[in-house]
Amino acid sequence: MRMNGSSTSAERGFWAVIPAGGSGTRLWPLSRTARPKFLLPLLGETSLLQDTLHRLQPLAAPVRTLVVCGPVHAAAIARQLPTLPEANIVVEPSPKGSGPAIGLATALIARHDPDALLGSFAADHRVERPEAFVAAVHTAVAAAQAGWLVTIGLTPTRPEIGYGYIERTDEAIVETAGGVAYRAARFVEKPDLATATAYVASGRFLWNASMFVWRARTLLDEMARLQPDLYAGVQRIAAAWDTADQERETAEVWAGLVESTIDHGIMEHAARVAVVPAELGWSDVGDWHGLGELIAQDDLGNSVRGDLVQVDTSRSVVWSETDRVVALVGVDNTVVVDTPDALLVVNRARAQDVKQVVAQLKRARRTELS
Amino acid sequence: MRMNGSSTSAERGFWAVIPAGGSGTRLWPLSRTARPKFLLPLLGETSLLQDTLHRLQPLAAPVRTLVVCGPVHAAAIARQLPTLPEANIVVEPSPKGSGPAIGLATALIARHDPDALLGSFAADHRVERPEAFVAAVHTAVAAAQAGWLVTIGLTPTRPEIGYGYIERTDEAIVETAGGVAYRAARFVEKPDLATATAYVASGRFLWNASMFVWRARTLLDEMARLQPDLYAGVQRIAAAWDTADQERETAEVWAGLVESTIDHGIMEHAARVAVVPAELGWSDVGDWHGLGELIAQDDLGNSVRGDLVQVDTSRSVVWSETDRVVALVGVDNTVVVDTPDALLVVNRARAQDVKQVVAQLKRARRTELS
Repeated sequence: MRMNGSSTSAERGFWAVIPAGGSGTRLWPLSRTARPKFLLPLLGETSLLQDTLHRLQPLAAPVRTLVVCGPVHAAAIARQLPTLPEANIVVEPSPKGSGPAIGLATALIARHDPDALLGSFAADHRVERPEAFVAAVHTAVAAAQAGWLVTIGLTPTRPEIGYGYIERTDEAIVETAGGVAYRAARFVEKPDLATATAYVASGRFLWNASMFVWRARTLLDEMARLQPDLYAGVQRIAAAWDTADQERETAEVWAGLVESTIDHGIMEHAARVAVVPAELGWSDVGDWHGLGELIAQDDLGNSVRGDLVQVDTSRSVVWSETDRVVALVGVDNTVVVDTPDALLVVNRARAQDVKQVVAQLKRARRTELS
Repeated sequence: MRMNGSSTSAERGFWAVIPAGGSGTRLWPLSRTARPKFLLPLLGETSLLQDTLHRLQPLAAPVRTLVVCGPVHAAAIARQLPTLPEANIVVEPSPKGSGPAIGLATALIARHDPDALLGSFAADHRVERPEAFVAAVHTAVAAAQAGWLVTIGLTPTRPEIGYGYIERTDEAIVETAGGVAYRAARFVEKPDLATATAYVASGRFLWNASMFVWRARTLLDEMARLQPDLYAGVQRIAAAWDTADQERETAEVWAGLVESTIDHGIMEHAARVAVVPAELGWSDVGDWHGLGELIAQDDLGNSVRGDLVQVDTSRSVVWSETDRVVALVGVDNTVVVDTPDALLVVNRARAQDVKQVVAQLKRARRTELS
């Protein structure tokens, strides 16, 4: 990676990492393995990935932004992000989770500047208040400069059982005009409804949206302590980067890495972890129910992208990628997704289970559909 | 109409009339104005119209069968029924209800033989027990020979509110080995559920399936008395049939006819009306709910024509005319119909209201879809 360190961004020296993994199977049949969620223009003319790059623009110019992706998506990413230097698309040979992906990106940035400050932000999330996002990152950067591994946690707006949570302490590490970084108490997995309700009521729990900010050196030091094999691996790849050995070394090392996430591998065990509470109008656009909530609704609560003719239909989501008319009669709380080769009808309360359809298609080796 | 009176059929001298009107809007988007229900192969390789002609074969050969239809369907009918003489396709210039349609067919047959016995049977119904149908017609013919206007009424199997009913008396007019013709008490319109339940419990009410049998002269005599204008009209057309004046006379007379049904115009007021109770495994294939019941169901009660991938889906109907995969998740009691230019999802309990979709499309002048 021949990265150009010069930048005109407000946050000189700040780097952005965008892990672009996962296909978003719960948004099938719109999302496919070959056409993952982050490449789709779900909420406007631009894709979630393009929106992410745009949102990061005040913090890091494209020359200081790395997108980490799988081999089959590199070309599409290069075309969707024409301002991103080709060398800033970091292709991982196979998916190994966020630990290796973000770890490698951090090691590559550290090779350029070990004291670099960087943040990692998912490629396929929605943020309705980008200015609040920038303010939260500024607060996180202040804590990262003091040597903390920092997360940005979303103030929960409902007892969601589909997300992980971060509990904060009352210990304020850094206070800026834009927010406060607290010492984090613990990371917790997806809770049941009663637990989630208690979390929301407590005021001390935040949604974990996989937004991380740290100094490159801080993460790598913790990784050397907690995951020495992963540390050695990403350092070995970083050392070979931009040399004749890059491909061979990367392939060889990557194959031996154990799958891991940054959360489990590092954040849950690290010594100094902070969290910046933020209200960003955030969504992970995780399933058709959630996507429907992000689309303008008519008087009957229907979210419609397409040519709908309805009779007594309410609280439903219609998404058509064809020019067919979609007629719904006496339908409530249902999602209908119409694409050229597949049609989905799902009870909105079962939106999470769309991934079971994809699993069935994969088991049947119907790869063109999954 | 140069009808060939010679026949090798079992019921020598018996004629069949098949009114092929109505587009079956409740089976939209499969049925369209240009592709009505009777032309569709809904329950096998052959269309409901072809099944109807086949079912009548033991009673009346094609040379003694008349199909009455609208101008836009004559060509398709001619191709679907290659054994039907072209002259036996009677084209009505515009839809005027069953009264003019069946009245004209009866007048045309009477012109050939005033004492001819004939029966009229809808083009788009399903009969699972054709031998029982033939037996019931034989009984009806015996009553018709005695000068009665005869209907075949179906023994109800459920308190259906979508059909009209015929109440019978206990007065047996004719008894044959195959059944009994009773004097009819009255025809009643579609009842409410409580009334329908009482009808079924009484054992005296039968579904009116628009199956009529009479001597041509008997019907025309009653028509002359009850609907003299209609009588004069169909006689005037019959007189001009097969002459140079046929088209002009038909167009002129037809335009002046008042819409009417055989039920309202004749049967409800005629002097001697009989009904033959029968159990035929009959269905009018009236809507998607009913069609679903005629298709083999899987263990979860789903009736499937297409490539279904399902998760927790039950009691639903899937009908696909495309090669797309249809995925249903957490769906119950729902009909999904997939055609190249239109997609329908309807609550099975609201299957009757599919006609409202067609009405909306017609109001919007989307004629290609309606």
